[in-house]
Order: sequence, then structure tokens, then C-alpha cells
Amino acid sequence: MLKFDEALFLKLVEEEGLAFRGQIEAIVDGLAKRGYSNLFLIGAGGTIAMMYPYEYILKSSSSIEVHAEIAAEFMVMNHRRFSKDSVCIFTSVSGTTQETVAAAAYCKERGATTIALVAEPNTPLAEIVDHCITTGYEKHSFDTFFMLLYMVIFRFMHHNNEFPEYEQFTKEVALLPRAILDAVQAFDSQAEAFAIRHKDTGYHMMVGAGNLWGNTYSYAMCILEEMQWIHAKSIHAAEFFHGTLELVVEDTSVILLKGEDETRPLIERVERFAEKITKQLTVIDTKDFAMPGISETFRKHFAVSINWAVLSRISVYLEQERNHPLTLRRYYRQMEY
Amino acid sequence: MLKFDEALFLKLVEEEGLAFRGQIEAIVDGLAKRGYSNLFLIGAGGTIAMMYPYEYILKSSSSIEVHAEIAAEFMVMNHRRFSKDSVCIFTSVSGTTQETVAAAAYCKERGATTIALVAEPNTPLAEIVDHCITTGYEKHSFDTFFMLLYMVIFRFMHHNNEFPEYEQFTKEVALLPRAILDAVQAFDSQAEAFAIRHKDTGYHMMVGAGNLWGNTYSYAMCILEEMQWIHAKSIHAAEFFHGTLELVVEDTSVILLKGEDETRPLIERVERFAEKITKQLTVIDTKDFAMPGISETFRKHFAVSINWAVLSRISVYLEQERNHPLTLRRYYRQMEY
Repeated sequence: MLKFDEALFLKLVEEEGLAFRGQIEAIVDGLAKRGYSNLFLIGAGGTIAMMYPYEYILKSSSSIEVHAEIAAEFMVMNHRRFSKDSVCIFTSVSGTTQETVAAAAYCKERGATTIALVAEPNTPLAEIVDHCITTGYEKHSFDTFFMLLYMVIFRFMHHNNEFPEYEQFTKEVALLPRAILDAVQAFDSQAEAFAIRHKDTGYHMMVGAGNLWGNTYSYAMCILEEMQWIHAKSIHAAEFFHGTLELVVEDTSVILLKGEDETRPLIERVERFAEKITKQLTVIDTKDFAMPGISETFRKHFAVSINWAVLSRISVYLEQERNHPLTLRRYYRQMEY
Repeated sequence: MLKFDEALFLKLVEEEGLAFRGQIEAIVDGLAKRGYSNLFLIGAGGTIAMMYPYEYILKSSSSIEVHAEIAAEFMVMNHRRFSKDSVCIFTSVSGTTQETVAAAAYCKERGATTIALVAEPNTPLAEIVDHCITTGYEKHSFDTFFMLLYMVIFRFMHHNNEFPEYEQFTKEVALLPRAILDAVQAFDSQAEAFAIRHKDTGYHMMVGAGNLWGNTYSYAMCILEEMQWIHAKSIHAAEFFHGTLELVVEDTSVILLKGEDETRPLIERVERFAEKITKQLTVIDTKDFAMPGISETFRKHFAVSINWAVLSRISVYLEQERNHPLTLRRYYRQMEY
């Protein structure tokens, strides 16, 4: 596959990623034993979007109080549910994202517990937090982070007596890298076809819900807008009928992200509408992927990873077809503001 | 002013709106006395957006647990913090918004307490909830709802021993209709100038934060997209630098909503960036409005109302300049999906 080193992927995500299981459990077990009031999942751009699935999963499966907050806003708003008894979780590939580092420092100064997943070792975020999982490689770091966050979040739920299946679940986390690889191989030609078809498309609507809302938001903003300079609007499936639908016409590109959680009927409703109106409907459905070895009951959770990985295939083909490097920026980290 | 009956506005918002103070306090006082676990603010489209300011205000000023949830998603997700001890608050102008009515029924069936603000009497939402404030008139109902929600939310905070200034605050709520009228009069010519300048603009970025994020989201989706069929992306000021900024060029319309809460520096950062890049920057700043009689410390809260009211002036001029009625729909309530 274009720009995808399968052996490296399996090495980084499967072998090295899973190696952190013991470290993660030691951290979470210690916190659960000591007690905490709530979880704060904090990030900016792609890394707050990455937290939204876990916020949704906790809200719908756990009585643990959780808040996903945008780092820069969190630092000024004086969040009244935040205290020294909060556990604050961050991720950053580079370990240098300005607001994330500042937010971690803010939380630590106020006595809260801070945990980070960071790809690059010896970076500001890695050094500032109480507990850091340093994955070591920038490549495939989002796939690795997603996998590690499953372990973090479900371990908290396990200690809250809400997830007796933790042991089985973690065994299946170990199967996830292969399931992802299967899925991207299966989707690859569709990703290329999408990029060819839409290389000159100037605007996309991306619609998602539930635990895929974060991916919907992130792909529109951080990939299409930031990395390809294509206008894109992310719309929650439950909100689609309260405004944005009026803009759909025969040639509007509408991309639906279908997952397998409780919100699937909300996306199906948008699908029924969109297929009547536009000829440019793309449906990306995790049900199309086999996920070998994954239990039926856990598929909905792993859909987050699978969805993100297949979307990422579209990115590399858009880059190629549009001759627009994913790393090109007009402004970000190019100027002061 | 075009399509603005000042006498009617003052009658509906000032006289009749304030008349509900006693009823609101009786409801909230009763619930506070009985006890509750948390507040759920539930809506769809414009009415979930209307709840976001109050969610922000509670998060930043109160230890009361609050959740703003999209109605259709809330009903399928099995929100684990929701219980019979929750207080659920809804608004609907028509009293018929499908998902909102269904969500109120869902909450009531599960034993939670339901409160609604509804404009139209004898409608499904009005009849289903435990406590309904029926304002009686569709005209200016958003302005009225905002005003009544201040009383509801701050009364809860007052009972939580977090808002000893409640009496003074409520006196100032009574001054808000006049402050709004002043603001819309002051802004009216700017609203018209905006509509003339942008009658053919096909895309706007709207940026806001803190207690103005709801208005940002709502104006982009429910007014520009739904009622004017103009593409618009709402972007949180703290997220602007993680993607959408890359699309700003010399002729990109960027609309900044500046309020007066703790997040103002986030918007100012976007402003510093945008004024270097685009010639089509519009800044709508509540600090430009006098708000006679409003205390300095309360201005930040009332900025939500003021901002929404002045934005609404843009709507009527867009309608006129673009010869596109605000009521025109291609699809909403025109077809089944």
C-alpha cells in the first residue's frame, strides 16, 4: 500500500504498543486505589478530538464523571468540577503542543494527577506530567494512542466495577492492530477511488455521531482543512436536520461515518435523506470490516480505531492525487499570532 | 428598524417575560429543597445551542453537575449520569420539535423532573413536562428564553450557595430588554452594511468561545445555513489554530463574536491572526454596547443575549438584500427522512 509499511505498523502498534499494558495498569490501579473525583480528558485539535470517543464511551457505559475540555479554554474558564482530586489525561505526538503542555502544567500546579501519552521522548509534555507513557515513534502514533486509551479508560471502568470483561477486552486489544491492517487493506482501493473522484472537490460535509463524532470533527478540521486546504464541515448526525441539510444539492459531497454504537440509527437517518438528494454520497461503515477475533459486543468500541485508520488511507491518496503534501502549512508554526 | 416592533419587543420580553419570575422561582425553589443530582440541558439545533451558554456558565461558576446533550443522541446513548434524580430542562418555540418532545417523554418516563420553556401554549412539549413556562408568543421567543434561562440557572446556583447576588442580578435581568433594544438600535446600521457587503459571499467562518460558543454554532448552522443557504463553519476560538486557519486568505469572511467572559483572550488571538490575513474581517463585540444599568460583573453573562439580538439584525438585512426569506426551506418539514 502507498506510504504504509505493514511490518513497521505491526511492530509499532502491536508489539511495542501492547508492551505498555503493564505500565498503564500500574498507573490506573494506583489511582483507583487512592481514589479520584473525576476524569478530565484535555487536548487541542486532533488530540481533543481523540478524547471525544472516550468521553462518549464513559458517558454511555460508566458512572465515572468525565469532562473532555479544549486545553486553551480549560485554562481560562476556572472549571468548577476540576480539583486536586481530578485525574487529567493528555496526548501529544510531538510532546510540544503549546496549549496541551500549558494545560498539563496548570493541572499539576493545582495538585491534580496528570497522565500523558507522548510519542517523542524527553519533550516538555513527557517531562511535566506525573505519569507518562512514551511510545517512542511518531509513526502510527494516533493508532497507538487510540489502542492505549482503550486500556486506560476501560481499566478505570473495571475498577469502578463496571467492566468485568476487562481481561477478555484487553486480549482483543491485542488483536486490534491486525484488525486495523485487514481493514486498511480492504479499504485501500476505495480510498484511492475517493481521492481520484474528489481531487477537485472544494467542500465536503462529514457526518458522524456517538463515539465517531471525534473522528468526524478531526478529519474535517485537521486533515481536510489543515492538511489539504479543502473546506469541510463536520456535522453531528443528530444535528444535521437542524440546518446543514438545506445546503445539500445534487453534487454536494456528503461523507457519512457509520459506526456500531447506539447512535447508528442517527446516521442511517442522514443516509436515507442524503441518498435521495446527492449523487456524491460516501458511506464509510465499520461493519464492512471483518475485525477477526473481535467479539460482537466490543466491535462498537474498536470501530473508533478502525474508522480512523481507514480515513487515514484517504489522506495519503488525496496528497498524491492533489499533489498537496499533508505537511504543508500556510500559517501553523510558520508565524506568530 | 426593519422588521422590529420596539413596543412589541418591550411588551413581550420586558413586561411579559419578567412576569414569569415568580413561577420560575417557585419551580426551582421546590427542586432545590427536594434535592437533585444534576442538571441536563437538552435540545436540538437552535435549542441545544441556546443551552451551551448556560452549560458554560455553570461549569465556570458552579459546582452543580451539568450536561448539555443533543436530544436525539441523548435518547439512544443511555447516559449513565442521568437518573430519576436529574432535572432536565428543554426549550422549544413551537412546542413540537420532534426530538425535544421525545426526549422530554423519555426523561419523564424514567422519573426525572422535566421543565420546559415553550412559546406556543397547548403544544406537545408544554403538556408533557412537569413544569412548563408558557410564554405565549412566537415573536422574540429566543430573547425571552435567554432571559428566563438566566433566572432558572442562577436561581439554582443561588440555592447552591454560589450566587448571593441573585436579588441584584434579577433586578438587572429586568433591565436587559432595554439594554438589548439599545444594542440593536446601535448595531442596526452595521447589520445592514454587513448584509450589503456580503450579500453574495458564499462562505463565512464564525468564531466564538466560552458562553458565546452556542451563538457561534447556532448562527452558522441555523441562520446562515438553514435560513439563508450560505455555507458557514463555526469554529471554537481555541480550536481555530488547529486546522481551519489554513483556509483563511485575503478575501475570506471571518466573523468574530467577542464577549466579555474569561475566554475573551482566545478570540483576541484569532483577531490578531485574522487582521493580518483577510480584508473581510467582521468583529461583533458586546463591549461596544452600553448595557445601561448592568453591573460590570454581570455584563459577561448578559453578553449572550446582547450578542444574539444584534446577530438577529444581520438576519433580517440578509433576507432583504439577498431576497431570500428566512422561512424558506428546501427540506426541513417538507419531506420525510
